[in-house]
Amino acid sequence: MSQQVDQVRAVIWVEGALRLLDQRLLPLEQHYIVCTDVAGVAAGIRDMVVRGAPAIGVAAAYGVAMAVAARYAENGAGWRQAVEADLTLLAESRPTAVNLFWAIERMRALIEKLDGDPRQAVVAEACRIDAEDLAANRRMGELGAALIGARCAVMTHCNAGALATAGYGTALGVIRAAHAAGKVSQVYADETRPWLQGSRLTAWELLQDGIPVTLLADGAGAHLMKQGEVKWLIVGSDRIAANGDVCNKIGTYHAAITARYHGVKLMVVAPTSTIDMSLASGEEIPIEARDEDELLTFGGKQVAATGARAWNPVFDVTPAELVDAIVTERGVVLQPNAEKMAALMVE
Amino acid sequence: MSQQVDQVRAVIWVEGALRLLDQRLLPLEQHYIVCTDVAGVAAGIRDMVVRGAPAIGVAAAYGVAMAVAARYAENGAGWRQAVEADLTLLAESRPTAVNLFWAIERMRALIEKLDGDPRQAVVAEACRIDAEDLAANRRMGELGAALIGARCAVMTHCNAGALATAGYGTALGVIRAAHAAGKVSQVYADETRPWLQGSRLTAWELLQDGIPVTLLADGAGAHLMKQGEVKWLIVGSDRIAANGDVCNKIGTYHAAITARYHGVKLMVVAPTSTIDMSLASGEEIPIEARDEDELLTFGGKQVAATGARAWNPVFDVTPAELVDAIVTERGVVLQPNAEKMAALMVE
Repeated sequence: MSQQVDQVRAVIWVEGALRLLDQRLLPLEQHYIVCTDVAGVAAGIRDMVVRGAPAIGVAAAYGVAMAVAARYAENGAGWRQAVEADLTLLAESRPTAVNLFWAIERMRALIEKLDGDPRQAVVAEACRIDAEDLAANRRMGELGAALIGARCAVMTHCNAGALATAGYGTALGVIRAAHAAGKVSQVYADETRPWLQGSRLTAWELLQDGIPVTLLADGAGAHLMKQGEVKWLIVGSDRIAANGDVCNKIGTYHAAITARYHGVKLMVVAPTSTIDMSLASGEEIPIEARDEDELLTFGGKQVAATGARAWNPVFDVTPAELVDAIVTERGVVLQPNAEKMAALMVE
Repeated sequence: MSQQVDQVRAVIWVEGALRLLDQRLLPLEQHYIVCTDVAGVAAGIRDMVVRGAPAIGVAAAYGVAMAVAARYAENGAGWRQAVEADLTLLAESRPTAVNLFWAIERMRALIEKLDGDPRQAVVAEACRIDAEDLAANRRMGELGAALIGARCAVMTHCNAGALATAGYGTALGVIRAAHAAGKVSQVYADETRPWLQGSRLTAWELLQDGIPVTLLADGAGAHLMKQGEVKWLIVGSDRIAANGDVCNKIGTYHAAITARYHGVKLMVVAPTSTIDMSLASGEEIPIEARDEDELLTFGGKQVAATGARAWNPVFDVTPAELVDAIVTERGVVLQPNAEKMAALMVE
């Protein structure tokens, strides 16, 4: 079973190059874009070839490794200074997912300690980040599945799956583990406008694993929850503030309010690399706004009236008070608050 | 100004034929389908050439008029009995909007009283239903706009505009009137998946009137309301139960829960023909489920993973406790309940 699960890999390092599964083309095409330099990786993150906070972090780590190799080959003495421009380029590729900055900082910390030829060491560190993310997901899968009691339907938003991580997934890792344990009768997935990560990515991933999945319009979540079948809303996160506020794909906050109204519990599944203890609350998290055309057009075709404007923030913040559990690889935080988050992070 | 507003007409009766603006093609094409018999009208309702509860009612009334004319021409004695099959055909075209059944019943009540050639009388009655709906919308526009205090942004869901009625609109009628009174700084419209009535219809209508409109993904409503600019969520309805529960486009209930969470008020604008006193609560309202392909494909192109299933209820029910005001042509019901609804309907 674990082999099957590992088949979906969004970020693959092969002999000095990074293969990114082009998630803009899924599910109709499975095509990998090969990045041979840091500019390619930054473009891949910016243009959403790769997406999902942990996957962005892993891709960025490999991007740093490629940048170091290139700068060292150019200039064996001044590479450390030269690579700073590459780290900035990567850091500017997307603003919200903190895993991006976390991975860059972790690579920078290594770089500062290196002597001699740095190339092997940076690749090894990127590979460690990759492997640790996969291991974290498996651990979170166990911890999260344990929170689910009687067999029930669960709901998810966006894609926090293998495609969004080094593999196995965060929210979908929990759903995979819970399904394997016989606890999941049905997965409901919001289609997740405007990018349709639910329809295009989550449904594809779960179908590959033989897990029953039913899509619904983002607005249908309340009507679904009213039916009583869904007991857990399970999502990933792009950044969690020190007080437990959770930033995730636009629509998560909407779904969280609705979940609370219906007594459906909200589980957020994210590795500790997603937790940003430098921000006191979610209000401080920068929210990326993407192009209006993501709403005004579809598949390159105009859908909205000519002249219409659109507001397209692609993340929102769910206050900690609406979160029942944050599941990390270090453990579970129930009813998160600043004190509990601090305790988790110093462990 | 009123001339400009009246330009958008979804249902037009011209010399014995019914012209239906094909709302599946908007905003890219403005094309009228000409219905010359009741079967054409029933198909137009079923296939959503015409949509919106009051517009469906008006179209059905003209459909009955055409049916009576055809049956009378065939058989001057037995037409009344023969037309029953046509009324059934119309009644089966869509299940949720009660205005459809209301219009058929009103036409049937007339038919039962008629002597001699019925043709002029049925056309006159359909025209009265049409004109009364337009007048009701203008009256509701005044009443609803009066509820809005200081200038603010408002939000709407789906299309409850001129396109959904005989003209001027219910929710958009209030927004038109409030905008004319200088009370609306901005209109936010949910795109309204799966059919995108917000992007395709509401934005088009409001732009024609020069009213500023900004579209957003259905899941972005909570994040928008959190900004504090929006003070009212204003929607139409397809059926209102005797206790004030409101059935409307899928996503309305989701938005209503979110509105209450943020202290945004919910105004439902609907003529009394939308109120179904025969149903004690919204739980009894039949909810239409449409084809899965409305979610799995887009513009005829596959978007979801092959093999994925979808759940596509196209209406939901907002309990009366979440409604701040129901605006009808007979008056406004604040904090609706069974007692207040009964008082409205006996007036």
